[in-house]
Amino acid sequence: MYDKCIAYLNQRGVQLEDIAECVLFLQKEYHPQLTKEKCLQAIREVLHKREVQHALLTGICLDLAAEEQVLDDDDLQYILMQDSALYGLDEVLAYGICNLYGSIALTNYGYIDKCKPGIISELNKDHKDTCNTFLDDIVGAIAAASAGKLAHNLDQPSTRKKETSLHQQDEPNSQRTPT
Amino acid sequence: MYDKCIAYLNQRGVQLEDIAECVLFLQKEYHPQLTKEKCLQAIREVLHKREVQHALLTGICLDLAAEEQVLDDDDLQYILMQDSALYGLDEVLAYGICNLYGSIALTNYGYIDKCKPGIISELNKDHKDTCNTFLDDIVGAIAAASAGKLAHNLDQPSTRKKETSLHQQDEPNSQRTPT
Amino acid sequence: MYDKCIAYLNQRGVQLEDIAECVLFLQKEYHPQLTKEKCLQAIREVLHKREVQHALLTGICLDLAAEEQVLDDDDLQYILMQDSALYGLDEVLAYGICNLYGSIALTNYGYIDKCKPGIISELNKDHKDTCNTFLDDIVGAIAAASAGKLAHNLDQPSTRKKETSLHQQDEPNSQRTPT
Amino acid sequence: MYDKCIAYLNQRGVQLEDIAECVLFLQKEYHPQLTKEKCLQAIREVLHKREVQHALLTGICLDLAAEEQVLDDDDLQYILMQDSALYGLDEVLAYGICNLYGSIALTNYGYIDKCKPGIISELNKDHKDTCNTFLDDIVGAIAAASAGKLAHNLDQPSTRKKETSLHQQDEPNSQRTPT
Repeated sequence: MYDKCIAYLNQRGVQLEDIAECVLFLQKEYHPQLTKEKCLQAIREVLHKREVQHALLTGICLDLAAEEQVLDDDDLQYILMQDSALYGLDEVLAYGICNLYGSIALTNYGYIDKCKPGIISELNKDHKDTCNTFLDDIVGAIAAASAGKLAHNLDQPSTRKKETSLHQQDEPNSQRTPT
Repeated sequence: MYDKCIAYLNQRGVQLEDIAECVLFLQKEYHPQLTKEKCLQAIREVLHKREVQHALLTGICLDLAAEEQVLDDDDLQYILMQDSALYGLDEVLAYGICNLYGSIALTNYGYIDKCKPGIISELNKDHKDTCNTFLDDIVGAIAAASAGKLAHNLDQPSTRKKETSLHQQDEPNSQRTPT
Repeated sequence: MYDKCIAYLNQRGVQLEDIAECVLFLQKEYHPQLTKEKCLQAIREVLHKREVQHALLTGICLDLAAEEQVLDDDDLQYILMQDSALYGLDEVLAYGICNLYGSIALTNYGYIDKCKPGIISELNKDHKDTCNTFLDDIVGAIAAASAGKLAHNLDQPSTRKKETSLHQQDEPNSQRTPT
Repeated sequence: MYDKCIAYLNQRGVQLEDIAECVLFLQKEYHPQLTKEKCLQAIREVLHKREVQHALLTGICLDLAAEEQVLDDDDLQYILMQDSALYGLDEVLAYGICNLYGSIALTNYGYIDKCKPGIISELNKDHKDTCNTFLDDIVGAIAAASAGKLAHNLDQPSTRKKETSLHQQDEPNSQRTPT
């Protein structure tokens, strides 16, 4: 299942490296030392989670069904091909992924969904006959989930310190002050 | 859009009256005076919300696509036809509906999803060539959302009292003690 | 932090064994072979997650603040002491825990929050000067999260089979048919 | 209850006008014609929702309890005074508000929580003895919820058109392409 998910991403024009770029975009200000390899590792772990795999599979199959015009409802067909502004099910699917990684993942997703760095804006470009309505949100969610995962792991020591000592200053790499 | 959603529900074997029965199942212990008509009214209001309509449309089209075997992925095809135990996207879609109506709607959904009263267990029966993987959760979510809506409206007076007076007892129809 | 969370639970009258009973209540129909020890193991893993620890700490401190009447707002003070029917923040906190474990955890929480098995109904009994408004939902959330975790682990093989074979029947221990 | 919530916001240094500025920040690119008065109207409607009032009340009381050092747990006391990077309950509370207004509200919240426009960065500044750990997220959530509410209302016509006609172009003010 894991390999198939990666195959689907590639087939739809997304490399794990592209997602790693998004994770770096989200985390570099807090963790300047963060490497692309560490990001890729986090992404792979996220992609091993069954609920993530199911969300990815379902979203991409919906994009494909819209492209192939096999959806029974014309309005939904049209909404998906247009990536209609007020259609929110793609975000709902994305939250199904982010929720598994906590609130840092959720806020990161909301941020990346607006800034659309790298591959995500690529996927958002109008490709007449292509539908990436779900894919761009799934990629953003995987990036945000991986960022949340890394944030918790990388900050562990400083945070554990903070929770025990009452005299220490807030660490510089706070998730709260992106400048 | 609203009329089409109702048409889809009917076409898939669900009448608003069936959903009203589920709402009564969820609320009658707290509001013995609750009528089926009041439930139908709440259901209609829920079905007028755009995000609810989109969730319903998307879920039913996924069920139909599985039935018609037009989904590109065989595993997803199989998972949906089986209503596989660990596939959670149908609940994710359902939560997209319940979240709009607050925490009472969410807990009611979790409860109804386990008890499967009336139409919901009907939809869960194995109908060889029919796929209701998303439909049963959407119906449960609409019922839970309507129940949450009613709970907030019906309890309004007693609650406002509670919030101002410090001497009054907890009202009998508490959402917390279904015994 | 982990040890302190357990200390708080004990101090408030909750043993991990009590939570294990709730997990068994939720999972025994799907996994008759499930042991209390396996449940305890899952609970301990859940309690090691930082976001779970923060939710537990915050909820219990809110209960304590209500008991000690140190909350600045009288209405909130009253709402918490009464476990008011329409106050939903305790469920919101609980969902912050369940979301980390996916949709099975969420539906299990909604179910247990209504059925209130064992310790949860204990905590819901009126103890004049005690406030368990947040604690009962946190205990339910930890049980539901542990159940979701177990469901994913225990069903792994059968599910992997299901996803690859197109000829196999749905396993008996499906999360979808609790009767 | 509504008046008290506004009183609390003012007492903590937040005017509804400050929140309106945040809503404009979120929506002006999609709705250049949006007025501050329309934003204030949406904010007032959001603040009339019981679950929003409860979240606001609970969050501000937690901030106050931390300031007054009446929380039983020293670690939580410290985490709240520091607005610790990995403490996510303030976002969980915020999502309890945003969820009521759908996915546009959720993504807007994630975005505003990172950009911290106007009052939100004000609240985030270190005021030695002040604790705004929950308040800044509640303000962001109210702004995001109001933005989501406006987005659905303002786009209604164009969207209804889109859903019925298959020949019309995507409207310029799409929530998806903020450039």
